[in-house]
Amino acid sequence: MRTLRMGMVGGGPGSFIGRIHRLAAELDGDAELVCGAFSSDAKRSQEAGQAYRLDASRVYASYRQMMEAEKALSADQRMDYVAVVTPNHVHYEPARLALQGGFHVVVDKPLSFSLEEAQSLHEIVKHTGQLLAVTYAYSGYPMVKQARALIAQGAVGTVRKIFIEYTQGWLSTELEKSGHKQASWRTDPTRSGAGGAIGDIGTHAAHLAEYVSGRRITHLNALINTYVPGRRLDDDSSLLLRFDNGATGVLVATQVAAGEENNLVIRVYGEQGGLEWSQLEPNSLIQRSPDKPMQVWRAGSNYLGGAAAANTRTPPGHPEGYLEAFANIYTAFHNAINARSTNGAAAGELDFPGIADGVRGMAFIETALRSAHSSEKWTEFV
Amino acid sequence: MRTLRMGMVGGGPGSFIGRIHRLAAELDGDAELVCGAFSSDAKRSQEAGQAYRLDASRVYASYRQMMEAEKALSADQRMDYVAVVTPNHVHYEPARLALQGGFHVVVDKPLSFSLEEAQSLHEIVKHTGQLLAVTYAYSGYPMVKQARALIAQGAVGTVRKIFIEYTQGWLSTELEKSGHKQASWRTDPTRSGAGGAIGDIGTHAAHLAEYVSGRRITHLNALINTYVPGRRLDDDSSLLLRFDNGATGVLVATQVAAGEENNLVIRVYGEQGGLEWSQLEPNSLIQRSPDKPMQVWRAGSNYLGGAAAANTRTPPGHPEGYLEAFANIYTAFHNAINARSTNGAAAGELDFPGIADGVRGMAFIETALRSAHSSEKWTEFV
Amino acid sequence: MRTLRMGMVGGGPGSFIGRIHRLAAELDGDAELVCGAFSSDAKRSQEAGQAYRLDASRVYASYRQMMEAEKALSADQRMDYVAVVTPNHVHYEPARLALQGGFHVVVDKPLSFSLEEAQSLHEIVKHTGQLLAVTYAYSGYPMVKQARALIAQGAVGTVRKIFIEYTQGWLSTELEKSGHKQASWRTDPTRSGAGGAIGDIGTHAAHLAEYVSGRRITHLNALINTYVPGRRLDDDSSLLLRFDNGATGVLVATQVAAGEENNLVIRVYGEQGGLEWSQLEPNSLIQRSPDKPMQVWRAGSNYLGGAAAANTRTPPGHPEGYLEAFANIYTAFHNAINARSTNGAAAGELDFPGIADGVRGMAFIETALRSAHSSEKWTEFV
Amino acid sequence: MRTLRMGMVGGGPGSFIGRIHRLAAELDGDAELVCGAFSSDAKRSQEAGQAYRLDASRVYASYRQMMEAEKALSADQRMDYVAVVTPNHVHYEPARLALQGGFHVVVDKPLSFSLEEAQSLHEIVKHTGQLLAVTYAYSGYPMVKQARALIAQGAVGTVRKIFIEYTQGWLSTELEKSGHKQASWRTDPTRSGAGGAIGDIGTHAAHLAEYVSGRRITHLNALINTYVPGRRLDDDSSLLLRFDNGATGVLVATQVAAGEENNLVIRVYGEQGGLEWSQLEPNSLIQRSPDKPMQVWRAGSNYLGGAAAANTRTPPGHPEGYLEAFANIYTAFHNAINARSTNGAAAGELDFPGIADGVRGMAFIETALRSAHSSEKWTEFV
Repeated sequence: MRTLRMGMVGGGPGSFIGRIHRLAAELDGDAELVCGAFSSDAKRSQEAGQAYRLDASRVYASYRQMMEAEKALSADQRMDYVAVVTPNHVHYEPARLALQGGFHVVVDKPLSFSLEEAQSLHEIVKHTGQLLAVTYAYSGYPMVKQARALIAQGAVGTVRKIFIEYTQGWLSTELEKSGHKQASWRTDPTRSGAGGAIGDIGTHAAHLAEYVSGRRITHLNALINTYVPGRRLDDDSSLLLRFDNGATGVLVATQVAAGEENNLVIRVYGEQGGLEWSQLEPNSLIQRSPDKPMQVWRAGSNYLGGAAAANTRTPPGHPEGYLEAFANIYTAFHNAINARSTNGAAAGELDFPGIADGVRGMAFIETALRSAHSSEKWTEFV
Repeated sequence: MRTLRMGMVGGGPGSFIGRIHRLAAELDGDAELVCGAFSSDAKRSQEAGQAYRLDASRVYASYRQMMEAEKALSADQRMDYVAVVTPNHVHYEPARLALQGGFHVVVDKPLSFSLEEAQSLHEIVKHTGQLLAVTYAYSGYPMVKQARALIAQGAVGTVRKIFIEYTQGWLSTELEKSGHKQASWRTDPTRSGAGGAIGDIGTHAAHLAEYVSGRRITHLNALINTYVPGRRLDDDSSLLLRFDNGATGVLVATQVAAGEENNLVIRVYGEQGGLEWSQLEPNSLIQRSPDKPMQVWRAGSNYLGGAAAANTRTPPGHPEGYLEAFANIYTAFHNAINARSTNGAAAGELDFPGIADGVRGMAFIETALRSAHSSEKWTEFV
Repeated sequence: MRTLRMGMVGGGPGSFIGRIHRLAAELDGDAELVCGAFSSDAKRSQEAGQAYRLDASRVYASYRQMMEAEKALSADQRMDYVAVVTPNHVHYEPARLALQGGFHVVVDKPLSFSLEEAQSLHEIVKHTGQLLAVTYAYSGYPMVKQARALIAQGAVGTVRKIFIEYTQGWLSTELEKSGHKQASWRTDPTRSGAGGAIGDIGTHAAHLAEYVSGRRITHLNALINTYVPGRRLDDDSSLLLRFDNGATGVLVATQVAAGEENNLVIRVYGEQGGLEWSQLEPNSLIQRSPDKPMQVWRAGSNYLGGAAAANTRTPPGHPEGYLEAFANIYTAFHNAINARSTNGAAAGELDFPGIADGVRGMAFIETALRSAHSSEKWTEFV
Repeated sequence: MRTLRMGMVGGGPGSFIGRIHRLAAELDGDAELVCGAFSSDAKRSQEAGQAYRLDASRVYASYRQMMEAEKALSADQRMDYVAVVTPNHVHYEPARLALQGGFHVVVDKPLSFSLEEAQSLHEIVKHTGQLLAVTYAYSGYPMVKQARALIAQGAVGTVRKIFIEYTQGWLSTELEKSGHKQASWRTDPTRSGAGGAIGDIGTHAAHLAEYVSGRRITHLNALINTYVPGRRLDDDSSLLLRFDNGATGVLVATQVAAGEENNLVIRVYGEQGGLEWSQLEPNSLIQRSPDKPMQVWRAGSNYLGGAAAANTRTPPGHPEGYLEAFANIYTAFHNAINARSTNGAAAGELDFPGIADGVRGMAFIETALRSAHSSEKWTEFV
């Protein structure tokens, strides 16, 4: 396999997620960042390109320019795919141009600024046949894969209860007024879209709940708040959930749980037992069963299933973390690209969150907000 | 102080909570079980009395008989108070008789079979001036006292979020059909009252949420389910909550989280930080704050506040548990009784859940069920 | 069964362990404190008796007086056994008098001031036929019983490694100079005996290592230190251990691990897996095995063995602690007394640390100190 | 800064640590693998080179050939440094050739086959002035850096006790007879050198103990065993330690703790408190102090010191693991190389384990084995 060539839109100085994308994409040596339009400010874009040690000729002043220039390069030079790591309001246009320009695309979550944009991208993906990944990175953790596999195998029986909580505290104060770049755009409806916490982390939670349990949310009953005075988007949410098989649950996504770092926990209970996974200790998966000792499955162990094993780099007792999980999304995406040039011959794991997941995430935001504004108890989530 | 004399209604063979009440009441040597009507079957009552090593003459065939007989004893012989540990449908009548007979009363939670009974007891308490305690035992843990004190002192700032979860798995199957005495009455609407899980453990959760946070629930939005086919009462509930100061939260009380033992966790977040306490590791209290290391307060430590200290028997590192917490409720109740004979001279901790808490618990059940049956999102909880 | 009558030597104002003994002895209602010589100061002894609500006529000014007076009482009045809870230098004489006076005896650990005293008590026990218990309380925890049972059943295979650590921090400073009663006598060679930390907590550790593993230490290699300047006894020790089956291990007993509360952890590894138990979270027992998930056994669960079950009072998820473990020692001791009056008919658990364990503890102190002063690597421990 | 060019000796098919080195070296984009002699079998070396996507012309059949060929390349082509990731008996010669050939060197731990080789390398390093790093990777964790910094700042006062334990279970059975490549050479004295577990993981433990505490071991008292029958090297060790300032401690390094993964824990106690860090939960650092709540320092937090911050890539709550820690060693090594071309201008963290640490590790093995064979209690460790 040759090394895939990656381009990047966004990720300039001060970006948190741009650096993560590059680390993740390059982690296994399957891909290499070769070009980027890192900022809408040409000078800042060049600064970022230098920090990434790119050839100045491949650092662009705009994503439009990048798409054009890269298309003009020879097939053995031009980028294979683009990672879009800008704020949400600049997801759609670069993704569209890239797909239509013949490039595959990775988009940071949530997929877009609005549900409409997401649906439009879905059409474009269908039409162009290009690949698109959305980095719901938490689904890349090996023990999340193991949880999903155990549930699919019936290890807990028919699922009854799904609890997912994503608690952060970093927006407990009016951080957006202090010049904090992340806080600034994530609380700005003109850049983030209609959702604050519900979009930024609620979509992670909703995706993980469905991914692990294998069930789909059908109705939700949302309480969405803005606690910090003056903030223009929500910073806190709690939802009651109904799933397609009769299971019910709770989703919490808050950014005002002061003192919490990035505490994502999922628990799924079925008729015969339950599973619990916490992102803060991602290498363990707890299984509880009536009438026998609690079991703790550990990453890297030889007793794990194929998906967990394929998403692990180190032996048991050598902890992996967030970057590795993020990289697992990229690995599957890279494999899918490579599979195209091998006529589909198996190339390892191919399971990554795609366009359908991205659209569903945007629908989740839209439905949750609709529910929050409704006096009806339940709102259908199609 | 003399040793107080305790009588018991219920707690015969097969009872779990009767034995706990006796252990708790006697733990510190402040009281002694002297009489009881342990079963409505005279023979079984005598068997229980023997197991408790009581004088046969103080073992009664009915609580009515007990009230009469004890009243007839001399003041230095007759019981000081009665613990009512029967199923819910037999709370009201013995409590009423006892109060009207001049005895103080302890009632296991929830206070009664119905809200109406609870309100009637409230009137009787007011009228007789006797003391009544309801054993919301989890509020007796020293680190719960510490959490309450820290929040009251402003350690987390104005409270914004309150999450309380009480998950059990023991009713995941149709245990009530197997002759299991506890399961049998707790799932029977003619003995438990209108609430299943929402009454049995939801009331604990609601009490703890208000007790620790110092805030009152004003509205709730309940999803209440019965998962086990054929069961006649609910076994699962999730509620969104609104509190009197604008805080919001989630309450979960389920008995079908298969594999869970008795997992009660409370987390309260304010503008400046948060607290977390878990009943499964009750000797620790976690405090999170932005910008500084997480702190773990430990039971028995010399830096704890007065309420925590007064409710601890052992030095740090010598774990205390459920019995000790339960006993703390009794200790405060005993102190309150003793304070009467000392003209109110301070006699230690006097903080125990009383009649108002009991009534509120019954109102919680009634309101939660009303909300669950309503298509309105929010139901007021007065 | 009638309620056994307990007397106490020591345990006056300021005593920590006296109160624990009373709570533990009375916890299940099997025994009742009826008399005591709580202090060598008659006034303080009466004060303590009052606090314990004893009849003043049964509160004595000395243990000699108590033995004489109690012997003179009728059989249905006099105490059945004596708990000796004084500092170590006052263990031997009251224990001797009690045994020779026809009373059973409980002695707080370590058994005596010196190995010689211990051996003499052993002779007296043999000669009188009375029962003697030594409160190595940590062996009373249900999950310790479970660990012992699992190892005896071969759950980890042939034992190879035994690690036991008992770390405390309370003697990190010169607390004995501040009037702290516990620190004062425990660091005083005229009251504690030859061992400081090695006697106070090292003996607990040594007992637990042998109790859980079922193996006996045969050789030890000790490093014993006094870290706090001016202290007259050791406050820190680390020992390499050899066991009778070829297993080896490490024992740590230190009271200068500043900030530690009472952190006792045991880990035993055999050819096929390992067990870990920590006193700070006593209701869990971790089992590790190659090639399968870690298992966590939980107190109160229905899958536990008989000994664990018999030493548990509450259902799973209702934590028990130190007092309950301590009480388990008393329960077995009470059962053994009662078994005498039933011609040995089974009366429940009979497993408690006895005179042989007490003597072995004193031999451990003596051998460890001998090793510490030797330039030879290994010292035999008979 | 330009991207540094890395060569590799060893790391062919079946190697665990070779892949780790590549991932770690390339993680931040500071270096790139450009050539290698991955196996002494030319065909397997080419296979590995292909897997690493190297140009076939830069894949060599032997390290000798590699050194010669790379030296012959132009300065802007040839490798900057070599990572030696072969079994221990093939560390010295490639390291020597590389250093003398003008290349910097990274050697996997332990530095060499024997102490003599290590001392010789020390001379060569001094003479050539080239840089050499030894991958004691655990010292690269940010919370290890934080622990070291806190102790250096006096956060626990004068250090008294140092406990370090490294327990693994993977060699509990005769794995080396099953064709397991790692087990095979690590238990073979002709490839590993004189030490088994004491060399493979004992050196990690000794390094970490000294690195974190800032103290040096002066004497040790070792018990070293071989538990698996037929094994030719030790698989288990426990050592009592004395440090240069009067502190004492215990070091455990065992590979027969059946069921353990890779459990490395360090605890350091001083006069005023203690620190605990566990590699299995590497993003937390526990600080215990008398008279105040336990504190848990968390990776990524803004309150951490410079060294911890400089060795972290993600915000709090986004766990980092083993690869990231390993990469931190490489980052500091890369910085040190780069600093040479900037005339020493500061280039970030420069703290990595070097030749002196490597030599000390080999001396540790030699001294521990000498102590184990001695009947003297203490052996000096110079």
